[in-house]
Amino acid sequence: MSENGKPVIGIMGGTGDLGSGLAKAWARAGYRVVIGSRSAEKAAAAASELGEGVLGAANLDAATQADIVIIAVPFSSHDATLEEIKPVVQGKIVVDAAVPLVPPKVSVVQLPVAGSAAQMAQTILGEGVKVVSAFHNVGAAKLHAGGRVECDVLVFSDDKDARNAVIELCSAVATRGVGGGSLANSAAAEALTSVLIWINRTYKCLGAGISITGLDTPKA
Amino acid sequence: MSENGKPVIGIMGGTGDLGSGLAKAWARAGYRVVIGSRSAEKAAAAASELGEGVLGAANLDAATQADIVIIAVPFSSHDATLEEIKPVVQGKIVVDAAVPLVPPKVSVVQLPVAGSAAQMAQTILGEGVKVVSAFHNVGAAKLHAGGRVECDVLVFSDDKDARNAVIELCSAVATRGVGGGSLANSAAAEALTSVLIWINRTYKCLGAGISITGLDTPKA
Repeated sequence: MSENGKPVIGIMGGTGDLGSGLAKAWARAGYRVVIGSRSAEKAAAAASELGEGVLGAANLDAATQADIVIIAVPFSSHDATLEEIKPVVQGKIVVDAAVPLVPPKVSVVQLPVAGSAAQMAQTILGEGVKVVSAFHNVGAAKLHAGGRVECDVLVFSDDKDARNAVIELCSAVATRGVGGGSLANSAAAEALTSVLIWINRTYKCLGAGISITGLDTPKA
Repeated sequence: MSENGKPVIGIMGGTGDLGSGLAKAWARAGYRVVIGSRSAEKAAAAASELGEGVLGAANLDAATQADIVIIAVPFSSHDATLEEIKPVVQGKIVVDAAVPLVPPKVSVVQLPVAGSAAQMAQTILGEGVKVVSAFHNVGAAKLHAGGRVECDVLVFSDDKDARNAVIELCSAVATRGVGGGSLANSAAAEALTSVLIWINRTYKCLGAGISITGLDTPKA
């Protein structure tokens, strides 16, 4: 934990578009953030550009220092990154934000055979890690621009407390976090990313997102 | 076509919650609707309750009379219904609204091996049928209540003209139809239904839905 009582957040792939956008948003909200990269030097350089509250380290070091670890690497590095950090994240919350896009057809849904990237993460990390899945539908450009992002974040986990902890983290980066059920349900948000890419291209908009409607209409 | 130039809509499973809700909404908007059921008598009785503009028939008859056919049967009857109507829907638009829920765990995403119900429909019906996928996330209760439904309808198809024809049909039943790409992308909307069922239970709300944000923010 940081001195301010907030969890330290480590971001694997923290030099990428999504990772650095999340780092910026959480640093702005008072979290201590360690961005990870395959190269410690590259991470340190990117961190100094992101400003106060952000440090840089090699992925394994960043995961070791963090209380909550975010996976924001390209899907091609997903499994290898998880294997690397597995020993230092036991007992921690690991938030999988990787989207199983298969280039070049990134606007076509191509979910993995396991059902979702999130379920693959749980299998690799084992039952000692609280895997949560989130941040698939938030455009990186909007995070970098600052201000409220008009996009709900669907949050999935088989562990209710871990899911709620990540829902709390969402308020710093988006309209709100909304629980979406177990890890198996992550398929919906992972698939939606390709749909939103298609919508951005077809409707020529900057950053389509989603909002959950009807949450304020309680059952009679 | 009806005398008013609007396509005749045939709804397989038109006596069910979703099917009858769609029938009501389209009849209200001036479309001629034929609801289908396994039993012609049951369909006729349900149609007379739905009021003016709605007729009832056995599924095969309803599909024969219709210009656009909606599949609103439970997933357990999905394949058999498509096999039955296959000969009479060649050249037509068939809109798959069936959600691949696997009872009893309907709040857990369990997509079919083929990827989506919609892709299964295209395989069964063959290339001569324009398969579109839509209406997975609109609560039946809201359709029956009347008035605008605060839920966007994601519309998928490999045929652009068919997709646009169904987007036009959406305005009578929901906030709006939004194109979501090819039939493979239907997995996103089909999976979202289980997520929305989970949200309704957990947040104790009446009818969670989705809205696509950012469509009005054009690229610079």
